[in-house]
Amino acid sequence: MSNAHFGQLLSEDDILNTLGRYFPMRRHQGVLLSRGDDCALLAPDRALAVSSDLFLQDVHFRMEYATAEEIGHKALACNISDLAACGTRPLAFTLNLGLPSSVEAGWLNEFFGGMGSLASRYNITLVGGDLSRTDRLQVSITVFGEVVGEGGFLSRGGSMPGDVIFVVGTLGLARVGLQVMEKDGREAMRAWPKACKALLVPEPRVDAGLMLARAGMNSRPPALMDVSDGLARDLPRLLGLSGEESVRASEGPGFGAELLIPAGLLHREVVDWCRQNGRNPVHEAILGGDEYALLGSCAPDMLPALHAAIPEFWEIGVVTDTGVIYCNNERIDGLKGFDHFAVQQQGA
Amino acid sequence: MSNAHFGQLLSEDDILNTLGRYFPMRRHQGVLLSRGDDCALLAPDRALAVSSDLFLQDVHFRMEYATAEEIGHKALACNISDLAACGTRPLAFTLNLGLPSSVEAGWLNEFFGGMGSLASRYNITLVGGDLSRTDRLQVSITVFGEVVGEGGFLSRGGSMPGDVIFVVGTLGLARVGLQVMEKDGREAMRAWPKACKALLVPEPRVDAGLMLARAGMNSRPPALMDVSDGLARDLPRLLGLSGEESVRASEGPGFGAELLIPAGLLHREVVDWCRQNGRNPVHEAILGGDEYALLGSCAPDMLPALHAAIPEFWEIGVVTDTGVIYCNNERIDGLKGFDHFAVQQQGA
Repeated sequence: MSNAHFGQLLSEDDILNTLGRYFPMRRHQGVLLSRGDDCALLAPDRALAVSSDLFLQDVHFRMEYATAEEIGHKALACNISDLAACGTRPLAFTLNLGLPSSVEAGWLNEFFGGMGSLASRYNITLVGGDLSRTDRLQVSITVFGEVVGEGGFLSRGGSMPGDVIFVVGTLGLARVGLQVMEKDGREAMRAWPKACKALLVPEPRVDAGLMLARAGMNSRPPALMDVSDGLARDLPRLLGLSGEESVRASEGPGFGAELLIPAGLLHREVVDWCRQNGRNPVHEAILGGDEYALLGSCAPDMLPALHAAIPEFWEIGVVTDTGVIYCNNERIDGLKGFDHFAVQQQGA
Repeated sequence: MSNAHFGQLLSEDDILNTLGRYFPMRRHQGVLLSRGDDCALLAPDRALAVSSDLFLQDVHFRMEYATAEEIGHKALACNISDLAACGTRPLAFTLNLGLPSSVEAGWLNEFFGGMGSLASRYNITLVGGDLSRTDRLQVSITVFGEVVGEGGFLSRGGSMPGDVIFVVGTLGLARVGLQVMEKDGREAMRAWPKACKALLVPEPRVDAGLMLARAGMNSRPPALMDVSDGLARDLPRLLGLSGEESVRASEGPGFGAELLIPAGLLHREVVDWCRQNGRNPVHEAILGGDEYALLGSCAPDMLPALHAAIPEFWEIGVVTDTGVIYCNNERIDGLKGFDHFAVQQQGA
């Protein structure tokens, strides 16, 4: 940590001391040198998975209704979810943190507490980063994960017609959580506890990702990603219908899908909220990201093992060769994935 | 790249297309999978050095007098300098970018152009990141470097009394550049071209770092870091007198230094500016960071080889066991390293 620029309330040393309490320098086989030098030094057994994301106040979270602990948790959880989405085991992360001058010691302790508790749980160690004073709270994290075995890295590519499309986790719950909390703040937690929890403290699906990676080592590996922008935007990426050039190019002209998502299988809070607000629960499920479910496809003969091994594993359809995605016999091209905090502009 | 939130002027696709032009997906032995998936996949021959830094408008740079190209260059250069400071070879980086709505296509092209040109020069490839809309321009980069050989990673630790302290590069020049540009903007470039250039487009000392790492493989490795906060703050870190706990603990009670920095050896623009402004040029040199010189120490018997191999290699003193740092027989404890943009508060 270097180059800090702080005002009167909390000095750089205060912040680093607080951080040191919540992020002990754990000995870790894959970490030869942790923070404190110009670079950390990582030595993974095999290849190293890397992902980096921004987590910004008023874009990705609100300080008005999320607690410091929840913000700290989610900032890291979103990144760990990318490691899970590749079937890798969390190893280390760097933290670039911009703190507004309004942040006080108590808040900072809770923030590092929330992040540190998640880090502990997944044995992921903080190896470096940077601090600065900013107008709004901002977090930029880069995570590193270890590939668990030869061929164990799961990419988005490789879906084939006839493959089963699956989800691990819930759909639409965090989207409902966002809408009720944007309207009523923490008061919304009384009526919609699971939806708010899905929004505030999403749990990365690390075990499921590792299980899928292991399953892939004995046969054709599943294609896998996490749902961060909603199925409507993320499924086309899995199928090679959109996304960055590298994915498109390697996947050919792109496949389609037939999804079957009965409203009765959605979380009860999603169904209830939609009924009260005149929305279509299946559309909300397709549009909702942010609770970081895993989305993937695999050969049908893998299903028995995956069902047995992975809680919340859920078949939602099949890959086709039509280039079009249908859900419950309706084309979903018209539905747009989630634009954070633009709730009021969105139709059902 | 995912999760963008942009307004009318530039869409996420516009930005990604522009980025694609300046950061081609190069084939790289150590990069198994580049951007476009949830994670990139790196496979360094040996261990992987990692460093992450913030580069923020009005904290680390000004849009008022730095061009888009210069900002793009320096954002990445500061990070590559951390790889150089460990004697590693640049391999890959991730870019988390916050863009204000005022940024237009022309500006963005120049920004990516400046960054892309430096990336090309060091064959460092962009493997992922994130985009968002922010009030002020902000860059958060994580860089990855390969260790060039067994024992080739150079840390800050390991200085011993009797070792020679050296610098590769200039001292104080970027500090003068900041002061003249804060006062006169780009107009200052006419009178102080080298100082402004040192501030705006610092060059990371990658070749020197690699040379030092190779020298270290045949004998006791040099201790090395880059000067980002000024010698007055950074030399104590090299000597274990300050810094994060890990460094202090491994270095014992800490060493001292006797520096000899004759004003006549400083850059002419530093000396001239100090004469015109009633400042002490040696003090300015000791306080100035931001031009990213390397600072290190090594056994005296390494000197002939290092002098021969490294341009701008410069002996500035010796390590002592006094726990105190003197420069030209004056204690430098009272001098404080650089606080960006707090120029007006600083005495000479």
